[in-house]
Amino acid sequence: MHAEALDALKAHFLAQVSVAPSILESHSRDESYPETHLPDVVVFAESEADVLKVLEVARTFQMPVVPFAVGSSIEGQVLPVQGGISLDLSRMNRVLQIQQHDFCAVVQPGVIYPELSRQSRPHGLFFAVDPGADASLGGMASTNASGTGAVKYGTMRDQVLDMRVALLSGEVIHVGSKARKTSAGYDLKHLFIGAEGTLGVITELTVKLHPLPVAVAVAKVTFDSVQDAVNCAVTVMGAGLNPERIELVDARAVQAVNQYKGTTHPETPTLWIELSGSGEALLRENLDILRECCMESCATRFILAREEPERRELWESRHHAFYALKRLNPGHETHTTDLCVPISQLPDVVSHTQELCLQHGLDAVLLGHVGDGNYHVLFHGDAADEATWTSIHQVSDLMVQKALEVGGTCTGEHGIGLRKRKYLEQEHGDLIPYMRAIKQVFDPHNLLNPGKIF
Amino acid sequence: MHAEALDALKAHFLAQVSVAPSILESHSRDESYPETHLPDVVVFAESEADVLKVLEVARTFQMPVVPFAVGSSIEGQVLPVQGGISLDLSRMNRVLQIQQHDFCAVVQPGVIYPELSRQSRPHGLFFAVDPGADASLGGMASTNASGTGAVKYGTMRDQVLDMRVALLSGEVIHVGSKARKTSAGYDLKHLFIGAEGTLGVITELTVKLHPLPVAVAVAKVTFDSVQDAVNCAVTVMGAGLNPERIELVDARAVQAVNQYKGTTHPETPTLWIELSGSGEALLRENLDILRECCMESCATRFILAREEPERRELWESRHHAFYALKRLNPGHETHTTDLCVPISQLPDVVSHTQELCLQHGLDAVLLGHVGDGNYHVLFHGDAADEATWTSIHQVSDLMVQKALEVGGTCTGEHGIGLRKRKYLEQEHGDLIPYMRAIKQVFDPHNLLNPGKIF
Ligand SMILES: Cc1cc2nc3c(=O)[nH]c(=O)nc-3n(C[C@H](O)[C@H](O)[C@H](O)COP(=O)(O)OP(=O)(O)OC[C@H]3O[C@@H](n4cnc5c(N)ncnc54)[C@H](O)[C@@H]3O)c2cc1C
Ligand SMILES: Cc1cc2nc3c(=O)[nH]c(=O)nc-3n(C[C@H](O)[C@H](O)[C@H](O)COP(=O)(O)OP(=O)(O)OC[C@H]3O[C@@H](n4cnc5c(N)ncnc54)[C@H](O)[C@@H]3O)c2cc1C
Repeated sequence: MHAEALDALKAHFLAQVSVAPSILESHSRDESYPETHLPDVVVFAESEADVLKVLEVARTFQMPVVPFAVGSSIEGQVLPVQGGISLDLSRMNRVLQIQQHDFCAVVQPGVIYPELSRQSRPHGLFFAVDPGADASLGGMASTNASGTGAVKYGTMRDQVLDMRVALLSGEVIHVGSKARKTSAGYDLKHLFIGAEGTLGVITELTVKLHPLPVAVAVAKVTFDSVQDAVNCAVTVMGAGLNPERIELVDARAVQAVNQYKGTTHPETPTLWIELSGSGEALLRENLDILRECCMESCATRFILAREEPERRELWESRHHAFYALKRLNPGHETHTTDLCVPISQLPDVVSHTQELCLQHGLDAVLLGHVGDGNYHVLFHGDAADEATWTSIHQVSDLMVQKALEVGGTCTGEHGIGLRKRKYLEQEHGDLIPYMRAIKQVFDPHNLLNPGKIF
Repeated sequence: MHAEALDALKAHFLAQVSVAPSILESHSRDESYPETHLPDVVVFAESEADVLKVLEVARTFQMPVVPFAVGSSIEGQVLPVQGGISLDLSRMNRVLQIQQHDFCAVVQPGVIYPELSRQSRPHGLFFAVDPGADASLGGMASTNASGTGAVKYGTMRDQVLDMRVALLSGEVIHVGSKARKTSAGYDLKHLFIGAEGTLGVITELTVKLHPLPVAVAVAKVTFDSVQDAVNCAVTVMGAGLNPERIELVDARAVQAVNQYKGTTHPETPTLWIELSGSGEALLRENLDILRECCMESCATRFILAREEPERRELWESRHHAFYALKRLNPGHETHTTDLCVPISQLPDVVSHTQELCLQHGLDAVLLGHVGDGNYHVLFHGDAADEATWTSIHQVSDLMVQKALEVGGTCTGEHGIGLRKRKYLEQEHGDLIPYMRAIKQVFDPHNLLNPGKIF
């Protein structure tokens, strides 16, 4: 790194700059990507002005800048593959306003979503996107994250009303509108959502909040096969019940959760379906319809959880599945796929996946935001076991190929990062020249998170 | 126009080309913009190949091309201000597939939305965006249209899953995914949605369909003032009732509708609220909550319409308000504003508008997709009455200024076209250089619908 650049940063930022090995190390990795790359320096921004100063130094010394929030992304997004500055935004963690009557909040980018939901609750509101990790709003916008709530409320793309974005040029632009909808010119907001920090640094977001559901119940519905479960999900979605969540876990995932949490869920393919109603009677009627749908779809058991602790426990199990599986496989690396297909294709695509795993003798676990057609397969293997990893990568490739054949995408919610660049070529090869041209518009010297996406 | 270009088009397209004065004239105007501009020629495309051929001729002879579907836009979007080719897409009007289990349809761009809903109905589905005119899916995507259904289902932006787009370069690109969600690289789909035909020609769309609501009722709720009505809308939205529609009409609008349709609605500010439930009991419970909300908000009457003909009539009245008002003002020009603000600001902004109209002695009518914070004021005046039109433009300017001050947008759904270019400068002056740069990427010679947006 340019010594002058480091001096400039230190002179300006004092204790907000670090080159301590442990800090560099914690900014060199994410939660799943196998490689690590050290940044030259980490700067902890505390304001938009700080962000602009970092961008100025980057511009002056032509140094790469990699925005870093929680670092929970899993495709290599935060790795500083060319060194440079890791721009840590976690201290920009204030909820600036909760606008109860407009169902929205204005936040700094480093606010983590559980904190936003906590602060919204006294207003009768909550934030609806809930990835499994305690991710930040800025990071989540940058990967277009979703989670269990997406089936009803949509993804980050659907929640962000407007944003302030600091550009490498030193400008701060304002994209979107605090109004619910707008048709004012080209939509630049959606360019920055999902851009993985390659086009600008988000310094403020206005995001939607939603009324807390009044009456809620969770049904745990078991099936003999993953296919039956998926078919049931299609039926439920068609009944207009508009579930809060509808999640698929396969037998292996339930087993892992049971071992991790000490629970005793039946170890068989299961749908966890959360329904709500604006009143008790309403909820009951919805539940009756749900039960019918499930019974028609060969459910083997239909168990209701009505009380808050029981429901919370259920969802915590789901949220912890990733770590539960890690715990089951100590010392192993994890590899997660993130396909999303039209829901009608899901039974077929899931069968295909299961066959592939069987053929290759892989230990694979299936989890799915199944109402969206989004499912994850988690593979585990000893990092040193080359044969297993070759199989895992082969199977992943074939799974992506199949998903693309049926009109799906190589990533429903995790993004491209480093790992999926080759899949993006397959899915959107025609668009990559245009993506590059747009990158050129906002970041002509390729300093913002270089090497990611394409 | 270049004689060779015309020859090339005639040789290729035969009867699909027209220079008949009546055809040129019908492609020279929209439903509201005061000016007209004749194209040199109209080509009726029947396929994507036809579109590509037109773009090739445009490229070869450097001629402007203006996509034209139904021509129901109202900000001057379809006017060929530099002459050239009006590319009529209305014959590309086939619904290609209805994918019942995926809740989506694949359509050509010239399909009008009532036709798509008609064909979806036997599958228990409908298309949820319903502007007042019988607009096309391609045109609606290009202005990011919405309508009464947006409060529950969102705008065109929320309905389009993927599109095929023909570019001036001769390429056809595929943006978006048939999967419900994707995080695969920069989102180019949202650039083409709302681009008003300036970046490419949409040749195919996959759009979401939604399950037909099972049990439906419409409440007609009257108030003493527009403010009370707006406050009520805020309360209803906060109760989590998730209405299908919630529309505001002021006393003048009701009067116009009564005169046009021979109805006898009380001529006072009114909310029309449609609720649904996945069963009868559910709906009844929802209606009870709704009635409570309305009574708490100073409603003067609460009248229910349960039967289909009565409900249809109500919504037809609303849909026909634009023409009802035209009929009330024969020979007059109409000017429509299209502001959208955070809903909490609506009472204040509406008061401000009413005062302005009073001050300027303007005859103004207020209609609103009030659940979204989107409202229209319709002004009428004799085209020759300069003083009135000066006032109308002054009031429009002040209304936009106020809306922007409170975080709103100059257009909730109609787009920029020619008329709102100056407002776009005010709202997104910081973004216009980037919009121009993106235009440059897709249309370096500025041939696609030149002069629009900026
Ligand atoms: C256990 C586990 C479960 C998960 N479950 C889900 C899930 O259900 N759904 C899901 O979508 N994801 C899931 N993820 C992935 C991850 O949580 C998401 O990708 C999340 O959006 C990352 O947020 P972050 O704050 O950690 O961002 P980071 O990882 O710090 O950064 C992510 C990307 O955003 C960029 N970035 C961060 N902040 C900004 C900013 N302010 N401006 C511009 N760019 C910025 C970074 O440069 C990077 O490219 C899971 C991950 C784990 C480990
Ligand atoms: C009575 C009335 C009521 C209305 N109510 C509403 C309402 O409630 N909500 C609302 O949003 N709007 C409303 N509008 C406006 C209008 O209906 C919308 O703007 C609609 O989206 C226009 O669709 P169209 O098919 O008529 O498109 P056109 O007017 O033909 O074209 C609109 C724009 O899209 C471009 N375009 C058309 N097709 C394509 C294509 N295939 N590819 C690329 N570009 C294309 C054109 O170049 C033009 O810029 C109303 C209009 C009227 C007259």
